[in-house]
Amino acid sequence: MTDALPLPTFTDVEAAAARLAGVAVRTPLLESPLLNERLDGRVLIKAEPLQRTGSFKFRGAYNALASVPEHQRRRGVVAFSSGNHGQGVAAAARLFDVPAVIVMPSDAPAIKIAATRAQKAEVVTYDRWTESREDIGARLCEDMGATLVKPFDEPAVIAGQGTMGLEIAVQAAEAGAHRIDRLIAPFSGGGMLAGLSLALERLSPHTVISSAEPEGFDDMARSLATGERLRNQDPAARSLCDALMAPMPGELTFPIIRPRADRGFAVSDAEAKAAMAFAFHALKLVVEPGGAVALAAVLSGKVDCRGRTTVVVCSGGNVDPAVYAEALAEGPLPF
Amino acid sequence: MTDALPLPTFTDVEAAAARLAGVAVRTPLLESPLLNERLDGRVLIKAEPLQRTGSFKFRGAYNALASVPEHQRRRGVVAFSSGNHGQGVAAAARLFDVPAVIVMPSDAPAIKIAATRAQKAEVVTYDRWTESREDIGARLCEDMGATLVKPFDEPAVIAGQGTMGLEIAVQAAEAGAHRIDRLIAPFSGGGMLAGLSLALERLSPHTVISSAEPEGFDDMARSLATGERLRNQDPAARSLCDALMAPMPGELTFPIIRPRADRGFAVSDAEAKAAMAFAFHALKLVVEPGGAVALAAVLSGKVDCRGRTTVVVCSGGNVDPAVYAEALAEGPLPF
Repeated sequence: MTDALPLPTFTDVEAAAARLAGVAVRTPLLESPLLNERLDGRVLIKAEPLQRTGSFKFRGAYNALASVPEHQRRRGVVAFSSGNHGQGVAAAARLFDVPAVIVMPSDAPAIKIAATRAQKAEVVTYDRWTESREDIGARLCEDMGATLVKPFDEPAVIAGQGTMGLEIAVQAAEAGAHRIDRLIAPFSGGGMLAGLSLALERLSPHTVISSAEPEGFDDMARSLATGERLRNQDPAARSLCDALMAPMPGELTFPIIRPRADRGFAVSDAEAKAAMAFAFHALKLVVEPGGAVALAAVLSGKVDCRGRTTVVVCSGGNVDPAVYAEALAEGPLPF
Repeated sequence: MTDALPLPTFTDVEAAAARLAGVAVRTPLLESPLLNERLDGRVLIKAEPLQRTGSFKFRGAYNALASVPEHQRRRGVVAFSSGNHGQGVAAAARLFDVPAVIVMPSDAPAIKIAATRAQKAEVVTYDRWTESREDIGARLCEDMGATLVKPFDEPAVIAGQGTMGLEIAVQAAEAGAHRIDRLIAPFSGGGMLAGLSLALERLSPHTVISSAEPEGFDDMARSLATGERLRNQDPAARSLCDALMAPMPGELTFPIIRPRADRGFAVSDAEAKAAMAFAFHALKLVVEPGGAVALAAVLSGKVDCRGRTTVVVCSGGNVDPAVYAEALAEGPLPF
């Protein structure tokens, strides 16, 4: 009964854009002559690593907090996240000057815990093998009277991520690309792709939407192929793309994306690293593994870009220096 | 008798901007809340690694080629450069569909030679210990009837680099920074800083201009202190900042910059690497050692940013992956 759920609309995306004006970065839409040549088409890259907190997640988090009534917001916010969502919520809470508690697994990379604490959030760690983060979060929300900000299945979060789509439509036209044939973006739970779908459905109705995922976590590709929400299947699957590990497409996000999407693409860790290296050499943009999967799908030739205009979202750049150095050492030179 | 030289003016910068419209990238002016907090002021970062060819040099090169009469340009262009200027000239020549020959030392990094060849330029190498690049260049120009594009002491190059200053003035105002107290940029021969001086003299006359250089190559700092153009003194000096090795301020650039500049700052290799690591973590921008010296001057506390608005130019991002990995491994975490 998905129709009963409160799905966000284009109007919500516009309202989010008004809230985010002057707060979020209008990230540039980059273009690389080298990439265009190689792919024999026009490729425009939305550079969300340049967003506040280094990923698009700030957009949705800020809009979610802005949507909570002031007397409620004052009591604080809680998020579960080992990464970008947590940093986005922490930074947004700080701008509203309200307390934030981010629940992270105790074995999360030290650099991510440090970056979250640098946003003045309280970090509560839990043992991911013996404790339930849901229980911890519920207890925190009860104790503080705080609001839980979910990472994707949340109308205000989806609307916030959709502001990126408004920018893309305007920036593509500014660059003389008056028709966007395809947009491809990384997919975890679908908050970003749902927001982009809402924006482009109105502003660029011919654009076909595609998802990019790591191999072994291609739940969206399989869900689009069958028309129903499917889970990732292999519990032993591993990926370098730590930001793209949600178990299945969201209950709200899937029905928004599905009518606008054709299919999903899955890429290997090696392809993600090659895309990170390409972005280093040709774009001078730091992209994390999960943020690079859409670029990887394009660079690997899986997405046909010939003679068309393709928008590729690079969604984040929060990557451990050692992982980054490894990608540079392994990645082929782009020329 | 500098007054006799054909110094470019603000009008030349405006003409360059018209030529570069839709060709050069209007690079973003980035801001990091973390940086603002740490320096207790507002710092705006002009992100020229995102420019075509990965550095600001494309601006001047393209404007120089556009300024040559068509019948002359058709015969081709020649530049001496082991790095960013060569890539800028090669890319500009390609856009005009004219031949380019870039004269590079035979021991230049393979990656720079490959990047220049990727722009379809012919690369001519010479032995820097036994051959004169000036002789080689002069011979090439004579044989081809080609035009030599000098890296900085060239009015059209200075005017082209100045287009960055027009963008900075507009973008700072868009960001609500209605007064720029100081602008600091990397300095080699001064083409960029002269262009910026011309632009800001008209659009932001209160702005104080400063140069940033590597230690051991602080010819501009010493020249500003004494009021006359001085050479780098120590032939044994070495620096990681391969883009900032010009022996002294330019004959054209110095008289343009001097009346608007207060002083120069010099930074160590370790400070440049720390700035590269900071840009990786907090800005997600790839910056090369020479491109990072102005950011390094600010981060190291040498430039007082407290309570003021400071614009910092990051001028390029063409860096060897191994050097970059080393900077990340050594650089402190910013949080």
